[in-house]
Amino acid sequence: MPDLDDLAASADPAAADGGVGIVVPQDFVHDKPFTFKSGQTLPGFTLRYETYGELNATRDNAILICHALSGDHHCAGRHKADDRKPGWWDNLIGPGKAVDTNRFFVICTNCLGGCSGSTGPSSLNPETGRSYGITFPFVTIHDMVRAQKLLMDHLGVLTLHAVIGGSMGGMQAMLWAILYPSFVRRLLAMATTAREGAQAIAFNEVGRQAIMQDPAWSQGNYPADGGPRVGLAIARMMAHITYLSDASMDRKFGRRKRADAANGDAYNFDIQFEVESYLRYQGQSFINRFDANSYLYITRALDQFDLAYAYGSLEAAFAPVQAETLVVGFTSDWLFPPEQNRNIALALLRAGKRACYTELATDLGHDSFLLESEDLYALVRGFLERSHETVVDFSI
Amino acid sequence: MPDLDDLAASADPAAADGGVGIVVPQDFVHDKPFTFKSGQTLPGFTLRYETYGELNATRDNAILICHALSGDHHCAGRHKADDRKPGWWDNLIGPGKAVDTNRFFVICTNCLGGCSGSTGPSSLNPETGRSYGITFPFVTIHDMVRAQKLLMDHLGVLTLHAVIGGSMGGMQAMLWAILYPSFVRRLLAMATTAREGAQAIAFNEVGRQAIMQDPAWSQGNYPADGGPRVGLAIARMMAHITYLSDASMDRKFGRRKRADAANGDAYNFDIQFEVESYLRYQGQSFINRFDANSYLYITRALDQFDLAYAYGSLEAAFAPVQAETLVVGFTSDWLFPPEQNRNIALALLRAGKRACYTELATDLGHDSFLLESEDLYALVRGFLERSHETVVDFSI
Repeated sequence: MPDLDDLAASADPAAADGGVGIVVPQDFVHDKPFTFKSGQTLPGFTLRYETYGELNATRDNAILICHALSGDHHCAGRHKADDRKPGWWDNLIGPGKAVDTNRFFVICTNCLGGCSGSTGPSSLNPETGRSYGITFPFVTIHDMVRAQKLLMDHLGVLTLHAVIGGSMGGMQAMLWAILYPSFVRRLLAMATTAREGAQAIAFNEVGRQAIMQDPAWSQGNYPADGGPRVGLAIARMMAHITYLSDASMDRKFGRRKRADAANGDAYNFDIQFEVESYLRYQGQSFINRFDANSYLYITRALDQFDLAYAYGSLEAAFAPVQAETLVVGFTSDWLFPPEQNRNIALALLRAGKRACYTELATDLGHDSFLLESEDLYALVRGFLERSHETVVDFSI
Repeated sequence: MPDLDDLAASADPAAADGGVGIVVPQDFVHDKPFTFKSGQTLPGFTLRYETYGELNATRDNAILICHALSGDHHCAGRHKADDRKPGWWDNLIGPGKAVDTNRFFVICTNCLGGCSGSTGPSSLNPETGRSYGITFPFVTIHDMVRAQKLLMDHLGVLTLHAVIGGSMGGMQAMLWAILYPSFVRRLLAMATTAREGAQAIAFNEVGRQAIMQDPAWSQGNYPADGGPRVGLAIARMMAHITYLSDASMDRKFGRRKRADAANGDAYNFDIQFEVESYLRYQGQSFINRFDANSYLYITRALDQFDLAYAYGSLEAAFAPVQAETLVVGFTSDWLFPPEQNRNIALALLRAGKRACYTELATDLGHDSFLLESEDLYALVRGFLERSHETVVDFSI
């Protein structure tokens, strides 16, 4: 385990800002057949991951971070000293931070089916020498979690101090506590749901249609340097709106017009409002880092995730859970609303488990779990400290 | 004015259900130059419209109905006896209904820039013999209202008993009361806004991008039988979600699966959930009745509508208003939320006008104004009856 003084004395410039410093992603290669829930198999797979901090002698200080739809394994630190941005949850994870890498061995891995180094539809199929495309096995949250477990075993982790995830990461975290009850001591799920409602499925379906109706999708068999870039950008622009909130968009953009459109009304279909410019940028930057087929697979995994359907009831699903659970909902999250988060804790409580629901008042929408919040940090810190205590808060 | 007994004795089968019966749309041809707010001109234009009931001798019993983005002039009755559906507001308009065609002369016209018979981007440009496409003048709500006024003059209407509209129709109705104060006695606006927020602009922009990035859009110069059908369907699917609510979609579809997908999980990207099937149907049926360029023009008109920006403040915008106003918001409308509706009435009140805001508790979302509601009918009926009385209800 690194010593705080060692870190403070480090010459690493990135660590000077209190972060985990320069991080080198690793690859875990599982070279045995892996059978998906669908019955399809792969001869093996790779998971790309990062770790921060060190595994202790008793191998019980590991914390697994599970990412959301468009996230990846890079959740803290920088790959290069001059990276414009650190990992996506760098505000939460690091030495002395809420998820304290001086104490914990933190692991984050790109999910199976993803496109940031882990095996997914864009990976080469060794049998054909071409990308799998949509011949890739159908992926479920269940498959993602089972693959992660193989990585934990590979790393020598004996127990997880906690599994933490927001959105799709929260789904994975719940399933971890269900599939490997004795392995998971604490479950921290945020801005998530035990099953999506019709509206969330509907938005995902529009995104999939935007991709699949793009001629460049070519039935999923597009070249690595091509593909349905237009469809993927449209899907991302739309989805991005659902991650924010009306209030946060109004505060950030309102009806502000671009400088070149500010002098009177623009009588054309070019960008006029700042929010249009922002969305187009979101769409364009996404297509440079995300694979369209992965987007199809992962949104389908989200839509099919349904604990009550899979186990008969939510209480039955949670029956084996041994983990202490904290579920955090955010008032402005309209994609996976507070009620859906609260229902998780309620079902755990009905199943006789230690569970707690807390709601944070934010106006930042679904992405609230990613944003800087001392309230959230204090909750996470306290939850990781405590041993066996249940605080129930059903305030809305 | 038709007599109730005459109507009851009519042999018209469609009238037997209490509706206005068979309706024949009319065309109003304005053959003088028309200058748009943008400064661009047309040598003339056509408005397609329908009327129900008869104009009285004093020409003061007319009610103008203004439609929303995807609506048209056909708001009551049927074109053929075996039409599957009547006009879009047939539940509200008809003999003895809330907007009583036994008493009122009701007019509804497809908006300028539309694609259901009125002059718009898909109309032939007489100078080129081809569709205008995006050479059509930029259209604003202001232009739509001015064109409607020419139709009112043509019909010999001396004063409007009321202007009624929901969503974009509400914007038109407000502008009617501002531009022609002495002409409008009552203003009834529902599920509308004096200006869209960033989120609504964002959704419109994603729809426009879906259309304009579709290769078949061809910079707006597509043939009448072609065009960006994929992009328009995507735009419609997404927009349709914003017209409903999470609760109504859950009640209508939930996570119900299609019969052919019901036996276990479907491991492919075909339709699995009922809501997916419904949305695809919505997209496909829309492309058969709507022009993609009209969609661009009209959404842009929606985004640019901003009374406070145009007049300095909302109170200044409403300064000339003489109409009695009723604004109706719907609790589940997240596209043009209750607060935006209430703000209209508040500004009118601050400007010293007779205005009233009422909120109806529905879970049907933005489209609540279109749905069957005895509460709404009673409000409309009462509002059309009263002369000069103000009831203010700011309850939420």
